[in-house]
Amino acid sequence: MLFKVDMTVNIPLGFPAAEIEEIKLREKNYSQQLQREGKWRHIWRVAGLYANVSIFDVKDAEELHQILMALPLYPFMQIRVEALCRHPSSIREDDR
Amino acid sequence: MLFKVDMTVNIPLGFPAAEIEEIKLREKNYSQQLQREGKWRHIWRVAGLYANVSIFDVKDAEELHQILMALPLYPFMQIRVEALCRHPSSIREDDR
Amino acid sequence: MLFKVDMTVNIPLGFPAAEIEEIKLREKNYSQQLQREGKWRHIWRVAGLYANVSIFDVKDAEELHQILMALPLYPFMQIRVEALCRHPSSIREDDR
Amino acid sequence: MLFKVDMTVNIPLGFPAAEIEEIKLREKNYSQQLQREGKWRHIWRVAGLYANVSIFDVKDAEELHQILMALPLYPFMQIRVEALCRHPSSIREDDR
Amino acid sequence: MLFKVDMTVNIPLGFPAAEIEEIKLREKNYSQQLQREGKWRHIWRVAGLYANVSIFDVKDAEELHQILMALPLYPFMQIRVEALCRHPSSIREDDR
Amino acid sequence: MLFKVDMTVNIPLGFPAAEIEEIKLREKNYSQQLQREGKWRHIWRVAGLYANVSIFDVKDAEELHQILMALPLYPFMQIRVEALCRHPSSIREDDR
Amino acid sequence: MLFKVDMTVNIPLGFPAAEIEEIKLREKNYSQQLQREGKWRHIWRVAGLYANVSIFDVKDAEELHQILMALPLYPFMQIRVEALCRHPSSIREDDR
Amino acid sequence: MLFKVDMTVNIPLGFPAAEIEEIKLREKNYSQQLQREGKWRHIWRVAGLYANVSIFDVKDAEELHQILMALPLYPFMQIRVEALCRHPSSIREDDR
Amino acid sequence: MLFKVDMTVNIPLGFPAAEIEEIKLREKNYSQQLQREGKWRHIWRVAGLYANVSIFDVKDAEELHQILMALPLYPFMQIRVEALCRHPSSIREDDR
Amino acid sequence: MLFKVDMTVNIPLGFPAAEIEEIKLREKNYSQQLQREGKWRHIWRVAGLYANVSIFDVKDAEELHQILMALPLYPFMQIRVEALCRHPSSIREDDR
Repeated sequence: MLFKVDMTVNIPLGFPAAEIEEIKLREKNYSQQLQREGKWRHIWRVAGLYANVSIFDVKDAEELHQILMALPLYPFMQIRVEALCRHPSSIREDDR
Repeated sequence: MLFKVDMTVNIPLGFPAAEIEEIKLREKNYSQQLQREGKWRHIWRVAGLYANVSIFDVKDAEELHQILMALPLYPFMQIRVEALCRHPSSIREDDR
Repeated sequence: MLFKVDMTVNIPLGFPAAEIEEIKLREKNYSQQLQREGKWRHIWRVAGLYANVSIFDVKDAEELHQILMALPLYPFMQIRVEALCRHPSSIREDDR
Repeated sequence: MLFKVDMTVNIPLGFPAAEIEEIKLREKNYSQQLQREGKWRHIWRVAGLYANVSIFDVKDAEELHQILMALPLYPFMQIRVEALCRHPSSIREDDR
Repeated sequence: MLFKVDMTVNIPLGFPAAEIEEIKLREKNYSQQLQREGKWRHIWRVAGLYANVSIFDVKDAEELHQILMALPLYPFMQIRVEALCRHPSSIREDDR
Repeated sequence: MLFKVDMTVNIPLGFPAAEIEEIKLREKNYSQQLQREGKWRHIWRVAGLYANVSIFDVKDAEELHQILMALPLYPFMQIRVEALCRHPSSIREDDR
Repeated sequence: MLFKVDMTVNIPLGFPAAEIEEIKLREKNYSQQLQREGKWRHIWRVAGLYANVSIFDVKDAEELHQILMALPLYPFMQIRVEALCRHPSSIREDDR
Repeated sequence: MLFKVDMTVNIPLGFPAAEIEEIKLREKNYSQQLQREGKWRHIWRVAGLYANVSIFDVKDAEELHQILMALPLYPFMQIRVEALCRHPSSIREDDR
Repeated sequence: MLFKVDMTVNIPLGFPAAEIEEIKLREKNYSQQLQREGKWRHIWRVAGLYANVSIFDVKDAEELHQILMALPLYPFMQIRVEALCRHPSSIREDDR
Repeated sequence: MLFKVDMTVNIPLGFPAAEIEEIKLREKNYSQQLQREGKWRHIWRVAGLYANVSIFDVKDAEELHQILMALPLYPFMQIRVEALCRHPSSIREDDR
């Protein structure tokens, strides 16, 4: 099942730089691991913002929930979730 | 350049069915032509709504504008545009 | 998979009464058929409003989409969809 | 009487982990006690969010108020309440 | 049980004056009947608006729903409902 | 003159409990004094929230302002004010 | 008593020009009459909009309500009302 | 040129009382000086709120900006600016 | 004086095409005349929308108001106005 | 490619003055360098607010993103981005 997830990151002013760099590194590794597994299909940066638009391909809402709650940056994020379907006008059977 | 476009379609109650079917057919053909050209990279249906999330890959904002203004369903749509960048955590050079 | 769907119905002033009664009757039959099949688990009226809160139990977002698009009252509705998971504090394995 | 309650939990960054774990444990016990008493009919997790959708079955608004104010996580919550009625299309006399 | 109900009335431009006067008269009679029965405890005009703030005292949400749906002006109204409790600082046992 | 005032109270996490209890006690005494004087006609709790709906009966906006600014909980409150009139459908000359 | 009233006028496309001109003329006469009586203290145009900011000086909310409901353009207006007080920093006793 | 400025003041809980009193005193002196110069034409308190509605009469937007940025309470304020014109229905040439 | 004006155009479905083309032509001529006079400094299309961002350089708010009210498309527009100043970081004395 | 960027700056109360002055100075130098390079075409102050409206002329969304993320004041800013096109009514080929 496909979900679009909008993530906006908000680091408080004065948060220790070393700590946030370490969290971002874990976030990147975690994201790339899920991308390689095909569960995090797409991730794009929103121009000018510390935010991304992502497409997840998971078994169900439960798997999506577990993946998102384990994001190292989750405590800093605002999240919006929308369930997606294949579009009848799409020319691909399984749009990746 | 990549753009995310959210399109929500709103057909007024009582709009002639034959006319709207003809417009939808032209919309589908137009969309599929642009998908084959690689300009309309992705189109997903938002579950439960007459709405889609689309990713466009165009030369610039001008080309995006011309494509959207020519959508047969454009007069019935509410549109939201966001410019996207490659995300530094993406594992693909050119995320399609 | 579970989804919460908020539906708000808006009948335009002056819409023919006989026609809307016929649509409402089809809506009721359609809803009760889906309730008997276990796909429309719950439907509650929001006090004071022509609106309901519903819980659907479907295979995936695609099945939800097909069910909602076929609602006889769909052209009169405003819809909001949220994907749900089992809650870790729930005392039931499969909360119905 | 039935009420739908949307609860969103917001733990401030840096709140002591041990303290919040202890509060969450009390929250879980409290919720499960009320579920066993039939007062907290349903609780579902909203996918991707630290939030739930709950259905309460209480004597009146006063009982609902006392239950919610005693939630161990209440000081961390944003709450939205809607009074519900049986829906005329429901196939159950007392939808639980 | 007490409910606060905010009602805003919106008569479309050009709606036949005789018809709306007849509806308003029925609304007034209906409201005054419910006031005499003690179910519609208070009704105040919001200064400058075609809107009121009302307090209802009913058995439950179902009774409130039936009362509101039968308002002659209901098809012209926007409605907001909030369930109320006795306030612990109130000096009256049953604030009317 | 009548005013409806919506008050929502927000106590920051970690605010000293003894201090807030003392402020709430002063708030209660202050409110009850004004109720006895007939200036604070009604106060109802909004179910599930640390919020109230109040009706004030004061000489003018200046008196309302002085009363509200002196609320012991004022620095913790979000306030919304609406001026009210007698409603032409009310069955009471002076709705208290 | 002073009230600030924001009025935004919305004439539907295609509304008969002669009719609206006649209404505007009555509006102007009505407004100027109230200005001469000192009840409509100020009226300013909001730059670029068919909207005004007005200050009324009336006996109470009831008088304000009667004045506004009798505005010839009232059925075309969106209205927002705020009760005002003398400001403690004002250098005038009765700011006109 | 006339501008309407809405100012809402927000003093954080626990801000040193002596310091804020000193700032408020400077604010009052500053405001009264500008009133005497005719640049700050009107200032009214919004009933029940720590907020005001003000009318400025300045040479241009630049002068307005300099005046507002120098408000002693500016760092505590939320500001909304609207440019005003003389209203064609006003009975005064230069509405003060 | 500089103003930023956001204009969004909304042509109702079914509005006669010939009539709207004639209005758009007059709009274009009017806009270009004002651009040549230096009063309408900039006009940019917002990508994907029937909307523009414009910068006006006028004597005062009154002149801006007269210019905007005379736009042939004004009855179809939603307008937002913000007064601008020279920015202290700008490298141009008179940013055109 | 042109982008409009709205930037609103928010310096927390009590942030060290020397530190913020140093950041503002770097911001000014950075902005003026980009203006001289022709990438930051326009910057205007919004009257009364610590905010600006800017027009950027960059190769693509990626370049815009890099420029904005490097703004010394970025951690204090709220940002809104809109992609722009040449307007068909503009009298300039390349509106600067």
